Amino acid sequence: MFHEPLLLGFPDYQLQAKNLARLLKIEYAEAELHYFPDGESKIRLPIDIPSTVVICRSLDSPNDKLIELFFTVKELRQKGCERIILVAPYLCYMRQDKEFQPGEAVSQRWVGRLLASLVDEVITVDPHLHRVKKLEDIIKTRRVAALSAASLIGNQIALRVSDPLIIGPDEESKQWVEQIAQLHDFNYLVGDKTRLGDRDVNIVLPPSDVKDRTVVLVDDMASTGKTLINTAQQLKELGVDKIYCAITHALFVGDSYHELLATGVKEVWSTDSVSHSSNCISLASLLADTIRL
Amino acid sequence: MFHEPLLLGFPDYQLQAKNLARLLKIEYAEAELHYFPDGESKIRLPIDIPSTVVICRSLDSPNDKLIELFFTVKELRQKGCERIILVAPYLCYMRQDKEFQPGEAVSQRWVGRLLASLVDEVITVDPHLHRVKKLEDIIKTRRVAALSAASLIGNQIALRVSDPLIIGPDEESKQWVEQIAQLHDFNYLVGDKTRLGDRDVNIVLPPSDVKDRTVVLVDDMASTGKTLINTAQQLKELGVDKIYCAITHALFVGDSYHELLATGVKEVWSTDSVSHSSNCISLASLLADTIRL
Repeated sequence: MFHEPLLLGFPDYQLQAKNLARLLKIEYAEAELHYFPDGESKIRLPIDIPSTVVICRSLDSPNDKLIELFFTVKELRQKGCERIILVAPYLCYMRQDKEFQPGEAVSQRWVGRLLASLVDEVITVDPHLHRVKKLEDIIKTRRVAALSAASLIGNQIALRVSDPLIIGPDEESKQWVEQIAQLHDFNYLVGDKTRLGDRDVNIVLPPSDVKDRTVVLVDDMASTGKTLINTAQQLKELGVDKIYCAITHALFVGDSYHELLATGVKEVWSTDSVSHSSNCISLASLLADTIRL
Repeated sequence: MFHEPLLLGFPDYQLQAKNLARLLKIEYAEAELHYFPDGESKIRLPIDIPSTVVICRSLDSPNDKLIELFFTVKELRQKGCERIILVAPYLCYMRQDKEFQPGEAVSQRWVGRLLASLVDEVITVDPHLHRVKKLEDIIKTRRVAALSAASLIGNQIALRVSDPLIIGPDEESKQWVEQIAQLHDFNYLVGDKTRLGDRDVNIVLPPSDVKDRTVVLVDDMASTGKTLINTAQQLKELGVDKIYCAITHALFVGDSYHELLATGVKEVWSTDSVSHSSNCISLASLLADTIRL
């Protein structure tokens, strides 16, 4: 049995986890994951488990991964693991933070309780916090860290375009847009979004002379991408030629990424919180700097 | 707020849950269930929650349903619900009852712990117990009941064919086959199965004169259906004309049901533990007789 901390990765989040292990200078081991034809998950863990394990896996497409995390943690604890740090750059269920209609399960709260019951520390990036402002009020465990990718995203923007106008599509994006703009002295403006359904939004941009600007749309995540698509289309209609997108979490369900590119957006830059072909910003250093082993 | 017990159903298990509520003479209410495009589940529960709630939903395709059960129970408890009875005619993860390879998570154990932590009573039918013989050793909660559909399946067989030969494809099916055969004085025999993979099995039948018999293949569940398909093919090759199948849990993933019928099996009879077009045996009375309100 080895006693150095171990980083435990999963096949669907291998590159990111291996990079993190390398920066932390700890051993990497990968769980074997198999889905039975009826939808049950089979997990096989390394045999030698040290007292500290870092589990690195984002929680997009969350239900399978939450159950697999549950099995993994229970097995690790049974094998004597005393300290489990969950590094989940993308955290799920953060948007369901109230009963939008009476009777709705506030799943943000229950996912927080589940994670707190399982692991000792949770490290994530840009969780979509809105009504509950602090992650430690959702996940009440020994230590939580909600990191910001704003600085990394700002650097990427500065690296690729000069004098950009940063646009956040809605009030909820304001926190990220402001931070990025202020770090680099970029101009910015923030739109106003009305959500009409899961896949239907209406964005109103403030009146502004954008025609000749290089615009970078910034948001924390793209799920159906409708918010970015709608905003990009409006900017195109206003005659804007150079449009880029920068996001932390590239969920991009279904065909949404190609729909976004089809609007004429030149490039999409995302962090590797969720594996996607637009990934160009590694979170490994940011995460490694926060983990205390 | 009403104080009579409530039966809480879900859209994907509506008929069975409504039948059960009718037999129990209690009100039926249905959770609203919505999947966001990124795979998160949204659940909306009735507003008035009594102190006793019967949740009726099988746990096939389990990961989504386990997370949804978790959210549901947490909300019910927060609203003051004191007693929660889970009626899950099909229970998931019962086959992973040991480390088949070193390091494998024994998910049967952890699902049992999860269910015990959530609900006060669990009622199920023909759980696939093999190495751990008693459901109460897996789910340590106030009350568990593992009912048998053998008598109902035996009745269905007796109703449709005369003097059948009951065949169980493998040693694990013996418990169901024996019970059914003895109740009705049917002849029976049991094969020997070697599993070569998730979707690949080899069945060896004992030497026996089966050619002119009406054969009913009996098992607790059909997942990929390979066990039944392989056995039916062998019987066909031995010249058996009349082959029927009777199972408790009709999971039938993918195209397996049609593959089974393509072997020449005349009819498949299943209980309504999992919704499927072969369902012809209602479990409602059996379940209702076991629930104590």
